[in-house]
Amino acid sequence: MKIGILGYGNLGRGVEYAVKENSDCELAAVFTRRNPASVKINTPNVPVVNLSEVANWQDKIDVMILCGGSATDLPEQTPKFAEMFNVIDSFDTHAKIPEHFAKVDAAATNSNHVAIISVGWDPGLFSLARAYGNAILPNGKDYTFWGKGVSQGHSDAVRRIKGVKNAKQYTIPIDAALNAVRSGKNPELTTRQKHLRECFVVLEDGADAAEIERQIKTMPNYFADYDTTVNFISEDEFLKNHSGLAHGGFVIRSGNTGENFAHNHIIEFNLKLDSNPEFTSNVLIAYARAAFRLYNEKIFGCKTVLDIPPAYLSAKTGAELRAQLL
Amino acid sequence: MKIGILGYGNLGRGVEYAVKENSDCELAAVFTRRNPASVKINTPNVPVVNLSEVANWQDKIDVMILCGGSATDLPEQTPKFAEMFNVIDSFDTHAKIPEHFAKVDAAATNSNHVAIISVGWDPGLFSLARAYGNAILPNGKDYTFWGKGVSQGHSDAVRRIKGVKNAKQYTIPIDAALNAVRSGKNPELTTRQKHLRECFVVLEDGADAAEIERQIKTMPNYFADYDTTVNFISEDEFLKNHSGLAHGGFVIRSGNTGENFAHNHIIEFNLKLDSNPEFTSNVLIAYARAAFRLYNEKIFGCKTVLDIPPAYLSAKTGAELRAQLL
Repeated sequence: MKIGILGYGNLGRGVEYAVKENSDCELAAVFTRRNPASVKINTPNVPVVNLSEVANWQDKIDVMILCGGSATDLPEQTPKFAEMFNVIDSFDTHAKIPEHFAKVDAAATNSNHVAIISVGWDPGLFSLARAYGNAILPNGKDYTFWGKGVSQGHSDAVRRIKGVKNAKQYTIPIDAALNAVRSGKNPELTTRQKHLRECFVVLEDGADAAEIERQIKTMPNYFADYDTTVNFISEDEFLKNHSGLAHGGFVIRSGNTGENFAHNHIIEFNLKLDSNPEFTSNVLIAYARAAFRLYNEKIFGCKTVLDIPPAYLSAKTGAELRAQLL
Repeated sequence: MKIGILGYGNLGRGVEYAVKENSDCELAAVFTRRNPASVKINTPNVPVVNLSEVANWQDKIDVMILCGGSATDLPEQTPKFAEMFNVIDSFDTHAKIPEHFAKVDAAATNSNHVAIISVGWDPGLFSLARAYGNAILPNGKDYTFWGKGVSQGHSDAVRRIKGVKNAKQYTIPIDAALNAVRSGKNPELTTRQKHLRECFVVLEDGADAAEIERQIKTMPNYFADYDTTVNFISEDEFLKNHSGLAHGGFVIRSGNTGENFAHNHIIEFNLKLDSNPEFTSNVLIAYARAAFRLYNEKIFGCKTVLDIPPAYLSAKTGAELRAQLL
């Protein structure tokens, strides 16, 4: 399976590593909006190509992995490139998925390609956990917790405050809430009861720490509804201890069955990830395999993880999977 | 969707409850090898029918749930009834799945029916966790832990010892092993390090407790490779505290990615079930929905959970799933 990478940031680099882990994949080319000569990749003898030339690669790439962002890149890129290639994206703006799906489906169906959108862990594996959990325990409740991990949006919000030089915000699930859910009590949890927010902030010279802390803690939507801790640290400490990309989270379905619904069942799926982009990349490659298989079966159009049989993610045959993993 | 239940033990009763939870399902009939008059079910106005008459029900049942045991019932029943009905079973003898699959596939393909075998939680949801985990983290290791829950096979083995009146054996995962796996260290774990075995035994009058304890703890395959605790209790205590059917377990995939595989990721799926048969029943009903959908699409033959798109388990449309659960 010949893979193309479109966009070479953290996610693109992760996909490059993921390709090496999968012996049925090879990297055909990396596409960039930058000057290709300025982009150094880790794989020898693979071309870096300017995005303007991508149309020439239609017969040399089986699946194109779109590694741009959800805010502005993917809403435009996925429908556009689904007209030329089988594509996978990690579009993660939950509220806009139906609209994105419709555009990508039209493009892929029209051009006889396969597109799988919103691939990753949330949306992605967490969506699978929710779908399986809801189907199996219809009389139940869903809980999703995120973290411990960096929220890019919240980090950006802190960085926009005057006097802040740099900042990182960690979302931390609260153990007491997790344990209440796991106990099968089906608690109603407020926003404040589910997650803590912890900020690490580097100040500009002469900035007013107390005022900045007040602004963070009272910021509507982002922090006001949470218990928030603000730590002021040096730039050295920031670079040394807060440049990681770890993340994770928990999806729990708690449901009841039987006579008077007396029996409770807990289905829990959780992730603990050293590198959010590298893990997401590995999910993208598994779904690229599924896209290529659907393409070979001439099942075109836009799909999500909910549409894909689990066996399609594997390079093993059905007989191997039944013997080894079932 | 009109459901038939074939076999009315713990699993059959669980399926009956599960049908009530799912508004798109109705129970058409319960089939039994016993005298139907002797079988009291919980649903009013649903017939209990002797198994000898099952062939008359082919146009009145959309999916037949086979609720027999894996040792002797299902190897014979699933291929046989796949010739007359769409069927779901919970065949759980892992080593014999390929052979069972081949027989059921021939019967279902030949008669234009859909069969989904080995549905439940292990095999079943645990198989899904293993398949997703392996596809996403090819450079990694699988761990499965069972419990805390009753092992029927081990309980039977203890009951066969002379002087034992009744017995129950709990398989208990060892926290230290679970935590070592969750830490990402990819430990090699011996049988003894993964699970404890705890027995609750009611003695016959005059039985030699010390000798029975010795026989249990040294029993090859079943107990000799484990740390085993034996508790002798009264019949009253046995009936009061050890008649539950709780179970559960953990599937963990630990894998590494990136430069020099420096980043570890943990994918964990775990279940905590108050009633093993009721939970299994709910999984069976979700896959019955998928079987009926495949049947309506004329995609016949034998499938396993690995072949079924997650969306097929849900009564919701694709658009609803994308908007609500993705």
